Amino acid sequence: MPGPTTAVIGAGISGLTSNKMLGDYGIDYTCFESSDRIGGNWAFGNPNGHSSAYRSLHIDTSKHRLSFKDFPMPHDYPDFPHHTQIKAYLESYAAAFDLQERIEFRNGVTSATRLPDVGWEILDQAGATRHFDLLVVANGHHWDPRMADFPGEFTGESIHSHHYIDPSDPLDFTKKRILVVGLGNSAADIAVELSSKSLQNELTLSTRSSAWIVPKYTGGLPADKYYVTTPYLPLAWQRKFLQKMQFMAGSNPELYGLPKPNHKFFEAHPTQSVELPLRLGSGDITPKGNVARLDGETVHFEDGTSSDFDIIVYATGYNITFPFFDPEFISAPDNAIPLFKRMFKPGIDDLVFMGFAQATPTLFPFVESQARLLAAYAAGRYRLPAVDEMERVIVADQQKYTGHVLDRPRHTQQVDYFLYEHDMRTKEIPAGLERARVLG
Amino acid sequence: MPGPTTAVIGAGISGLTSNKMLGDYGIDYTCFESSDRIGGNWAFGNPNGHSSAYRSLHIDTSKHRLSFKDFPMPHDYPDFPHHTQIKAYLESYAAAFDLQERIEFRNGVTSATRLPDVGWEILDQAGATRHFDLLVVANGHHWDPRMADFPGEFTGESIHSHHYIDPSDPLDFTKKRILVVGLGNSAADIAVELSSKSLQNELTLSTRSSAWIVPKYTGGLPADKYYVTTPYLPLAWQRKFLQKMQFMAGSNPELYGLPKPNHKFFEAHPTQSVELPLRLGSGDITPKGNVARLDGETVHFEDGTSSDFDIIVYATGYNITFPFFDPEFISAPDNAIPLFKRMFKPGIDDLVFMGFAQATPTLFPFVESQARLLAAYAAGRYRLPAVDEMERVIVADQQKYTGHVLDRPRHTQQVDYFLYEHDMRTKEIPAGLERARVLG
Repeated sequence: MPGPTTAVIGAGISGLTSNKMLGDYGIDYTCFESSDRIGGNWAFGNPNGHSSAYRSLHIDTSKHRLSFKDFPMPHDYPDFPHHTQIKAYLESYAAAFDLQERIEFRNGVTSATRLPDVGWEILDQAGATRHFDLLVVANGHHWDPRMADFPGEFTGESIHSHHYIDPSDPLDFTKKRILVVGLGNSAADIAVELSSKSLQNELTLSTRSSAWIVPKYTGGLPADKYYVTTPYLPLAWQRKFLQKMQFMAGSNPELYGLPKPNHKFFEAHPTQSVELPLRLGSGDITPKGNVARLDGETVHFEDGTSSDFDIIVYATGYNITFPFFDPEFISAPDNAIPLFKRMFKPGIDDLVFMGFAQATPTLFPFVESQARLLAAYAAGRYRLPAVDEMERVIVADQQKYTGHVLDRPRHTQQVDYFLYEHDMRTKEIPAGLERARVLG
Repeated sequence: MPGPTTAVIGAGISGLTSNKMLGDYGIDYTCFESSDRIGGNWAFGNPNGHSSAYRSLHIDTSKHRLSFKDFPMPHDYPDFPHHTQIKAYLESYAAAFDLQERIEFRNGVTSATRLPDVGWEILDQAGATRHFDLLVVANGHHWDPRMADFPGEFTGESIHSHHYIDPSDPLDFTKKRILVVGLGNSAADIAVELSSKSLQNELTLSTRSSAWIVPKYTGGLPADKYYVTTPYLPLAWQRKFLQKMQFMAGSNPELYGLPKPNHKFFEAHPTQSVELPLRLGSGDITPKGNVARLDGETVHFEDGTSSDFDIIVYATGYNITFPFFDPEFISAPDNAIPLFKRMFKPGIDDLVFMGFAQATPTLFPFVESQARLLAAYAAGRYRLPAVDEMERVIVADQQKYTGHVLDRPRHTQQVDYFLYEHDMRTKEIPAGLERARVLG
């Protein structure tokens, strides 16, 4: 019995793992990729504009945590690979599982419309109309820059971190007064890079919510080797333990002059940087709270101070955007999109979302875990629960993973990978297989 | 009773603290400074060529440890001040104690000859011959570059870290294959700076002895706040304790691919860097052991591998040099110069050396401690022990401070500041005051 004809939008990590697993299950799929290459966000300088990688970017998760379970990273890789190495890893993944041949390059999806009965009508970049039974959305959520919305107008240069490449691209970042807005990993990396006294900039870092800062190394080992949540203890207890221990890591941003976080340790994604505390403690970076308003080249902060700047870098995150959907049909205002297991919109059975989560510590094995369910579903071996049961689980899961975090666009999709993977492997997938066996 | 007319060579930290303390004791002194400014090593771009500071240099000791006891650093200074701030601190020190007026700027000492009976004949830069009773040598020991002496010839560019300013000065350090030789603080800083992927260099770091690496921050506090030796426990026990605890700091360079150190933790000056482990663990820096030989643009390493390079940066330390002395009279071959309390050459009573030590954690309060003895000595209130007693103490002190360290030019002057200062304050100075009282 042949499975559904399947369209996969995107050949980044979510699309590639989907393709690999669909192929394993013998599903007939076509992958639409708007670029001439795989890798999405990890294809530095991606011609489709969907890579946010800067030249010096290294992944913030160690290779030990990053590896796909079914395709380990090369032994000779460093602990924290460079983006070029992540790209090469994805290339070898695609080669090992023959994924290239079913990808239509330079042929993204322009629009995807659900047909009245079942199935999808897709208009591709080449102008062709195509039909599929199942649609897999894997177009990523780190490519559509989200700007901060401060009152007033800034007359200097403004760029989003998405467009930042290096200290001379796309702007000359030397001998400038620079404000970096945000305190996520991109904000920390870019602030550190541009604050080097060798570039002779004056660098200010402004944050609204502040963030706890964790090092990439602890005691000489990648710090994320120590970070494992277990499904056998309440998550609240584990968070409490981490909160008690955080002083050892020097994670409190107030130690370095940053504002007090408006959340507890590990209640929101921490920022990983060993360099940021050093640069703050060396006076290379001036810490500031939130921006109050902009006025010409002057930025007024909420603490009543103000400074003049030449450049503002907005490292303020990304919007979840589905340019191929009618927004009336599906959109994610403030990045909120309630999905069963972060994959299914209850009531729309022939649509699967892949990789729309902020997984801690990383998205790589997370999407692999999702892909296992996707393929079992496409092959008819996994069956979804009833719509009301899915609605109930969405609320319960959201409470479990994000009940404690801030109501911020960055955090709406927060998921603990270890708990998620354990739930998928030991509960949700077996339960769906059983439903399929019993109900057909 | 007037004290001896005194000449001080140099207006860096050793000369300035000497001047301040001599002034406090009412000694008539003249300070000879070859540059047009104070600060010596800390006067970035010093026209006399004696500053080894690079543009991005921050001191590796926190301000809490760095402050002179009688002139605290400003409260608003960051934990690890930039060289411009150290310079400003020295300027305000000089202003607070009126030190500028007795410094002859652009008038260094060309030669200093001990007269047959007593006193000194000095030829200054201006060509004048001057006479003094007492000579204070404070010309520093971080300005005369020591190059590694590898067999063969390298046909690319070679520079010493002394001449390194920033990634575009004095060479264009972008898109180059760079070898940094050494693993001291300069080597670590420069390797980190030049290895940033934004500069598109390939960076290799070669070390002969390797080194333990300690962070600048531990648990969010400047790490040197934790490092205090006490005179009330044997130093060997305290070293043993640090050696047992080092695993917590991730200080073992082997964790990051560097060679095994040929010494135990804290047996030699550790290298302070939080960034070096990260850059090694990110693959930005390739670690290597010692260089075996040079051949054109190829460097052969002792492990049998070889690579081609465009530039070699020798961060291989400095020679102790006294250009104003006849080398037959006094010199420091391999940086070895045995001195009583690192100040007096037994038998030459009218000559005092200031700041010729590698003090852990820092030289600043160390030279201040020496200056107290200097001024008491010049004022006739402190009297030296007999020559044979001084010789005995030199051997005992050398055994105490450096008996455990490697026989390397960098380590011959190793001194533990806390023990040294305690010894000076509670033993040596009181004993010398008593000798002066009894013997006159």
